Amino acid sequence: LVAVYTKVPAEDLNAFLARYGVGEARSFKGISEGVENSNYLLSTTTGRFILTLYEKRVEAGDLPFFLALMEHAAARGVPTARPVADREGRALQTLCGRPAALIRFLDGVSVSAPTPAQAAAAGEALGRFHAATADFAQTRPNALGPDGWAALAARIGDGADRIAPGLTALIASELAALASAWPADLPRGTIHADLFPDNVLFVGDKVSGLIDFYFACTDIRAYDLAVMLTAWSFEGPMDRHRPETAAALVGGYRRAHALSAAEEAALPLLARGSCLRFLLTRAWDWLNTPADALVTRKDPMAFARRFAHFRDAT
Amino acid sequence: LVAVYTKVPAEDLNAFLARYGVGEARSFKGISEGVENSNYLLSTTTGRFILTLYEKRVEAGDLPFFLALMEHAAARGVPTARPVADREGRALQTLCGRPAALIRFLDGVSVSAPTPAQAAAAGEALGRFHAATADFAQTRPNALGPDGWAALAARIGDGADRIAPGLTALIASELAALASAWPADLPRGTIHADLFPDNVLFVGDKVSGLIDFYFACTDIRAYDLAVMLTAWSFEGPMDRHRPETAAALVGGYRRAHALSAAEEAALPLLARGSCLRFLLTRAWDWLNTPADALVTRKDPMAFARRFAHFRDAT
Repeated sequence: LVAVYTKVPAEDLNAFLARYGVGEARSFKGISEGVENSNYLLSTTTGRFILTLYEKRVEAGDLPFFLALMEHAAARGVPTARPVADREGRALQTLCGRPAALIRFLDGVSVSAPTPAQAAAAGEALGRFHAATADFAQTRPNALGPDGWAALAARIGDGADRIAPGLTALIASELAALASAWPADLPRGTIHADLFPDNVLFVGDKVSGLIDFYFACTDIRAYDLAVMLTAWSFEGPMDRHRPETAAALVGGYRRAHALSAAEEAALPLLARGSCLRFLLTRAWDWLNTPADALVTRKDPMAFARRFAHFRDAT
Repeated sequence: LVAVYTKVPAEDLNAFLARYGVGEARSFKGISEGVENSNYLLSTTTGRFILTLYEKRVEAGDLPFFLALMEHAAARGVPTARPVADREGRALQTLCGRPAALIRFLDGVSVSAPTPAQAAAAGEALGRFHAATADFAQTRPNALGPDGWAALAARIGDGADRIAPGLTALIASELAALASAWPADLPRGTIHADLFPDNVLFVGDKVSGLIDFYFACTDIRAYDLAVMLTAWSFEGPMDRHRPETAAALVGGYRRAHALSAAEEAALPLLARGSCLRFLLTRAWDWLNTPADALVTRKDPMAFARRFAHFRDAT
């Protein structure tokens, strides 16, 4: 499922920690949080932290945006992973030749089959995140918006038919349909852009943490809720739609942030875009990951199946 | 470096924890402890644990031996990972279709460049482990003893020359030399058999944990100390021998367990056997791991270089 790429020797860790006021290492374990970066769970004499070394899949130039965003949201009470600054006020460091950051540990467990109550809590947490970042001044383009989809589809070419016959044509028709219909006038803001159940920690039915901000960007705000509809409201190998979970996501969001009639009406279309985004990146990874690699390839076809639901609704 | 193979959904985790009296899950992270098994760091409302799912590289039939050994040593005050029994007294469980065990978490950090003081403490911990297991009644043959080396060398065949020219001949000559010289009359006992620096946790210079007992077996007791000499007392890419570390390992061991003159005299020969054992398993993994896999292949040649030191001493 997962890989830690960079091994941090204890000696380097101790030199790194000396920059901070967080005490000395008590334990230090590589963890499998995401495949893009190397992550360690660190316990010190003063608390628990995640130490992240950013590997090449994350652009180093984007890191100040991500870290500032996490700090901004956490400072406003959103339960987000919070970077720790060293004694000189810097959150972004270098360790073992890689950009690195120390982030406060959040309790909680992600769920693979969220209940409607958990979906409502997660939707509300997204609304709180949007409210808290209304005054976040930094911006970052969405590399995986409509332009990015077209570029990725071109790189995949007809390779998609090796995953499933007809997939190339399905991608082309969705790209064309979304290019002409994609809304231009919906409110924009800072979005998480990848709020799958993997990225929400719960203690019981309460959200204890939003994590993995490394796709965050500036884009149509309601698209973030559409990503959640795509990711949370289907179940089982046939991706059966669960309307009560979808309603809970939207209802929960509304408890924390307004959603205009125009935004709500656009959700099925935005969700089609979200299906295409995850279909394309998974298809690319599928075609470029050896079948015998230790990383589990995620099935791109889940999002082809979910297309149909949202297309019928638009 | 590492892979978690089996993903445990939160729902399965909760059902599993209900068998125990350890409270409810507060956090749950896949960790990269060893490549043979899937390991999770679990925090509950009562403490911290490692949850291990045993993958196919560990023989399920050996698990009762490993778990009983860990319990036996921990109960006698050796700082070893200790299995937790469920409400019905069972340590060995099934989770997600795999054998599984819940083990108490140990604080501490493994060091990559041990100091002589740390080597002495680790040698002493090995001595305490040997003293504590003198009355451990279960036995397990060493699958990676002389017979195992010959079988593995035969499977590798002349593939070793693809790693380094001449390696096949070196292996053959060491196999023959050790087969005729291997001692038959040294004291036997329960040995860890893999006590590399990776498998010893420290808080400062104090040993807080011995971990990874999944090569433990019944064999020549001094061979365990020879494995440590092989693994701990060389440094740098040229594997320069560090005599002060070697002396610290032996001196530390003697603080906790006797070492006869015959055992001490046999250490260089036993260490040649240890070099061959790790050379062979690393060579096998090297030849059978794709170069682009996410698991780092460990260099077999480190042990070819260490041969020379011990051969000169025998």
